[in-house]
Amino acid sequence: MKAFRKRDFPLSEIRRYLEPGPIVLVSSAWKGKTNIMTMGWHMMMGFSPALFGCFIWDENHSFEMIRRSEECVINLPTTDLINETVGIGNCRGDKVDKFKEFGLTPVPAAQVGAPLIKECYANFECRLAEGRLISTHNLFIWEVVKAHVATSPRYPETFHYRGDGIFMISGRSINLSRKFKPENL
Amino acid sequence: MKAFRKRDFPLSEIRRYLEPGPIVLVSSAWKGKTNIMTMGWHMMMGFSPALFGCFIWDENHSFEMIRRSEECVINLPTTDLINETVGIGNCRGDKVDKFKEFGLTPVPAAQVGAPLIKECYANFECRLAEGRLISTHNLFIWEVVKAHVATSPRYPETFHYRGDGIFMISGRSINLSRKFKPENL
Repeated sequence: MKAFRKRDFPLSEIRRYLEPGPIVLVSSAWKGKTNIMTMGWHMMMGFSPALFGCFIWDENHSFEMIRRSEECVINLPTTDLINETVGIGNCRGDKVDKFKEFGLTPVPAAQVGAPLIKECYANFECRLAEGRLISTHNLFIWEVVKAHVATSPRYPETFHYRGDGIFMISGRSINLSRKFKPENL
Repeated sequence: MKAFRKRDFPLSEIRRYLEPGPIVLVSSAWKGKTNIMTMGWHMMMGFSPALFGCFIWDENHSFEMIRRSEECVINLPTTDLINETVGIGNCRGDKVDKFKEFGLTPVPAAQVGAPLIKECYANFECRLAEGRLISTHNLFIWEVVKAHVATSPRYPETFHYRGDGIFMISGRSINLSRKFKPENL
């Protein structure tokens, strides 16, 4: 499996990786156990503080672990982890140790109890910022408090879910910065 | 400009187009005026009812139009509209009629006052479902009440924002449905 060298990354720039809408892996820890879930329903909600919203289905085993700990790590897998990611989304954390089952390495985070997934391109440590809509809409709003991002490649090849078992793989980049006003970049 | 033939599309399946995280155009109407804004901070939040969350910056001219009307249309542009989309994000609706300026055609919606953008691949008519976090977090949660989607191609080429004026263009599709449990597709 790929090993990435990572560095601390400016929190105000994490949209580079999250705004395009990739599938992410959410790692959690609660009462001595860890878990991982696959997630596609999420969005950026602020630059500074760096806010990130996500929908977590309450039938997921991770839901209570995340709700109670009020922490998680958002991990960004590249396409070489697509089979593991589908596997993680298709088994339950109360029955399987997903780190062991899928050959992934938990690494202690700096600021939260949930582990980073070493094999992912980037890891974003999160603390709950706003939970008023958890019970009615399954919405968690996180403050990202630390970001670990691979030093290369500049843009990871990510995968994005269309439903029905079909993924879109991220394609080429186009730079249109000359058409932007500086304040809108 | 491309013209799409569209059909009504099942609301419970709109994640096919929105979950991958494309840039969308939000059209609105208020007191006889229309507007369009470019948006990348959004996510799916439910299948049935079809819920869709988005962050709208309160400095955008569209913010008050959308907040007051409690309606909008989410329009999905394909890559052939990327220059218009950047242009729309870099001018203000209080100074420019964006439909005229960018050669786009407003079409009356079926269930909301905001117009559809004819040249887009898909149009999702939205009514406000939950507004408690608008004032604190700029979060609008919409119920999509009608979907108009092009009959072909099956998967539109969309563009996804990385910040700094750089877009990721959607790439190839991979079908991994054989690795899913049926209830997880």
